[in-house]
Amino acid sequence: MSKKTTIYDIAKELQITAATVSRALNNNPRISKNTRELVLETASRMNYKQNRLALALKSGKSNNVGVVVPYINRSFFSSVIRGIEDELYPKGYHVIISQTHEDKERELKIIQNLLNAQVDGILISTSYSNDEKDKLEPVLKKTTPFIFFDRKLNFPDISSVTIDDFQGGFDATKHLIDQGCKRIAHFYVNNDLELYQNRLDGYKSALLENGLEFKPEYVISLKSDMEAGMKAAERLMKLPLPPDAIFSSTDKGLLGAIKYLQSLSINIPDDFCVVGFSNDPFTQFMEPSISSVDQSPVEMGRMAAKVFLEQMASEHAVKINKEVILPANLIIRKSSSKIQKK
Amino acid sequence: MSKKTTIYDIAKELQITAATVSRALNNNPRISKNTRELVLETASRMNYKQNRLALALKSGKSNNVGVVVPYINRSFFSSVIRGIEDELYPKGYHVIISQTHEDKERELKIIQNLLNAQVDGILISTSYSNDEKDKLEPVLKKTTPFIFFDRKLNFPDISSVTIDDFQGGFDATKHLIDQGCKRIAHFYVNNDLELYQNRLDGYKSALLENGLEFKPEYVISLKSDMEAGMKAAERLMKLPLPPDAIFSSTDKGLLGAIKYLQSLSINIPDDFCVVGFSNDPFTQFMEPSISSVDQSPVEMGRMAAKVFLEQMASEHAVKINKEVILPANLIIRKSSSKIQKK
Repeated sequence: MSKKTTIYDIAKELQITAATVSRALNNNPRISKNTRELVLETASRMNYKQNRLALALKSGKSNNVGVVVPYINRSFFSSVIRGIEDELYPKGYHVIISQTHEDKERELKIIQNLLNAQVDGILISTSYSNDEKDKLEPVLKKTTPFIFFDRKLNFPDISSVTIDDFQGGFDATKHLIDQGCKRIAHFYVNNDLELYQNRLDGYKSALLENGLEFKPEYVISLKSDMEAGMKAAERLMKLPLPPDAIFSSTDKGLLGAIKYLQSLSINIPDDFCVVGFSNDPFTQFMEPSISSVDQSPVEMGRMAAKVFLEQMASEHAVKINKEVILPANLIIRKSSSKIQKK
Repeated sequence: MSKKTTIYDIAKELQITAATVSRALNNNPRISKNTRELVLETASRMNYKQNRLALALKSGKSNNVGVVVPYINRSFFSSVIRGIEDELYPKGYHVIISQTHEDKERELKIIQNLLNAQVDGILISTSYSNDEKDKLEPVLKKTTPFIFFDRKLNFPDISSVTIDDFQGGFDATKHLIDQGCKRIAHFYVNNDLELYQNRLDGYKSALLENGLEFKPEYVISLKSDMEAGMKAAERLMKLPLPPDAIFSSTDKGLLGAIKYLQSLSINIPDDFCVVGFSNDPFTQFMEPSISSVDQSPVEMGRMAAKVFLEQMASEHAVKINKEVILPANLIIRKSSSKIQKK
């Protein structure tokens, strides 16, 4: 491999200073047109290639956008990322992805690393809750644009794209009520994120607006996995008056509950209706297929990317502050189609 | 926000040149101990922070490792990435992930971008086939270490970590033969990758070694999705002599085939046995649970990271060249347990 040509080689060749070469290459107005042309010609002849990163340091633009998610393998997040890529790739941006595994310390390090790597912006679904948001404040105060998607923190000057989780929870619960369900339980994912609270609030409101009592013993806090869902269902079914439906904030947890209910030979949807949240792909091909609230992840990603592009286009570092809330869409399938079936 | 302190500010403060400040900060031996201490003190007092990327440009080390995969949401790839992160994160490396969507032009751009961003290494599962490997050669010739995992290209001086796909195909087919299956079909994923060819070769060898004929009409080329699997199964079942088993190189394709067979009321495993490849998580919770060849993805990721660390530890840019082949592990579940059931 031959040694790379540097600005020092060009400077030596032309017997001028490296600073002059550098200024000429970066179109500094202090350099005469003649000198600039001479430098460019020589640079080209000597096969000089400007290091893009060095350019990024100068121009402050790397054309890289960092995307930070809890887990890349959750269908929801990978679909959001696809939406972001669909929007940014044709505009010449590279999307580099990092996952936090919901480790907050790691999330902070990842952000610092992306800022050090001079990304043009960071699109993030955070694992911090609003109670702890002070810890992220120092990095968010940088001039690099941040956009929250799905999991947001309430900062007055940072844009966000979310879905209407309250409405999703409300619609799912209302639909179960319309199917004739009277004792609707709720699987609540307990990790301090506002969005799960919003779904729970939607559930509560739908119950109360329709004359049903809210019973705390019907709300089970769990992790988003199958095992936890099986245990939660077991706990519910051992209550003196077991529920006749579940609205779950997690599709994976609901899957465990369905397994448990089936082991008791409880027929879904005839004896028991269920609705999940996220519209994970497996919900379609299970038997019975599972109703779920779709979060329009590709659309969410596209929108987050558009907000970023708008921020980039706003000259003179004017901070734009958008709060986009996309509608949640209930997808009705067999698992909650008691009436339609007949 | 206050303006960031630069080396020019420090130079002005101390009435020395910026070059001297820079050298002092970078421990250049040409700078006296006194000057260095003075610069460091002043830098600290003025709250100067060295840009890590500028340092990376100097030292050639960014502590970022690029991981390039076809799709982040395939369980296999996300598990490999977890293995890579498990190994590299404790060593102070940041893993930045990019997905190619099996678009070769995009893959090339992603690699160039990562090289420009000064990553310390690239761990990649390529979408290029060996026939087209010349196109990747220019970027692979760089001094930045590359390690292939799962999908590799045959370059004499680049390390790789794969599984023994031939053995996986052989074991799966032999297991079906041991269950008494006589007419074993194969789903082949046709995208020119050597690994699918190796699985097909394993399938062929197992047939021939056990006195069964290899019938080309039993090998169906398909894409790795449910729809394609349904159609492939339909084609097989319409043959004059339909098969009694499928060994599929794709779990998703096999899922479609199972749906189709179930729609014909064919009992699995009593009338028809199936084995997939990848051990996708859904294979466990389907009814019947699906036998599949596990590719030890987390182990593969850890191993690829270890090879990278070994490369980084080898001073003086000695290129190490490792070809690690991990064993494939057949996981037997209900879908192919004709004999064990009785």
